[in-house]
Amino acid sequence: MELYGERGFESTTAAEIAERAGLTERTFFRYFADKREVLFWGAAALEAYLVRHVDEAPDGLAPLEVVSLALCSAADDFFDDRREFALRRQQVIAANPELHERELIKLANLASAVAEALRRRGVTETAATLAAEAGVAVFKVGFEQWARGSGAQTLAEQLRSSFGDLRAVAGA
Amino acid sequence: MELYGERGFESTTAAEIAERAGLTERTFFRYFADKREVLFWGAAALEAYLVRHVDEAPDGLAPLEVVSLALCSAADDFFDDRREFALRRQQVIAANPELHERELIKLANLASAVAEALRRRGVTETAATLAAEAGVAVFKVGFEQWARGSGAQTLAEQLRSSFGDLRAVAGA
Repeated sequence: MELYGERGFESTTAAEIAERAGLTERTFFRYFADKREVLFWGAAALEAYLVRHVDEAPDGLAPLEVVSLALCSAADDFFDDRREFALRRQQVIAANPELHERELIKLANLASAVAEALRRRGVTETAATLAAEAGVAVFKVGFEQWARGSGAQTLAEQLRSSFGDLRAVAGA
Repeated sequence: MELYGERGFESTTAAEIAERAGLTERTFFRYFADKREVLFWGAAALEAYLVRHVDEAPDGLAPLEVVSLALCSAADDFFDDRREFALRRQQVIAANPELHERELIKLANLASAVAEALRRRGVTETAATLAAEAGVAVFKVGFEQWARGSGAQTLAEQLRSSFGDLRAVAGA
């Protein structure tokens, strides 16, 4: 991530990333299909984590509340103390349209997986898709704010505040 | 669109589309940069329309209400009587990952433009982004349902019902 920031994504090679991380190029490619995947490492683990938390959420909550709880737990378990990494990552992605596309696809896939987990809880097709899409939108907005912020609040605190903002903009 | 449905997107050429539409290939390329753009024709007009409607919305509405009104007007002015076209288009896009990516990018751009228009109305940065992202998510979900539906309701009716669903999943 440091290298992407220093040189730009395009002109950093996988060999250079491997070297900086103290890995051989062969080991690097055992973990990552290509140099873009470094930026999206953890997406599969995050998805599995969210799905499990949606599956295990208590009964009787509104669908968006279920999504909010899962995301706030993930915030603590995945992103605590990683604000600077998150900020650098955002800057690299914002500077490269191809990476921005990949980010959008990963977020869309995350929303689909969460929607499917909600449907397994008996939430209707439409409500599940809406809650998942809205939840991921809140995550995207809250995550960006947190990454750009001073670090005074945790990501989970930021997300809770962003979910409150969503209820406010919806006129609730 | 008929051709994409009959043969698949990959094996349809721009020349064939032009012929079916009664255009020369040269005229076709004057309107569309490539054969993918046929599917996203109208995106710029839709964006301009939404931005104008957000700019001109009455004062005192919740941000998501402003977005909802703009989208429902657009539904009547752009998509009335185009349900079959919309359904075929969805099927072509769903069958092709590259088109799906482009669809996600166009929707993300639409959300950015709407958020910017909301900020011009004095809505705060966060509330504007959230209302725009949530509004576009409702549009995406409502549009898919409408395209797959029986045609008993208009897109605007479907969207109003989907905005109600969003308030319900948010526990409002």
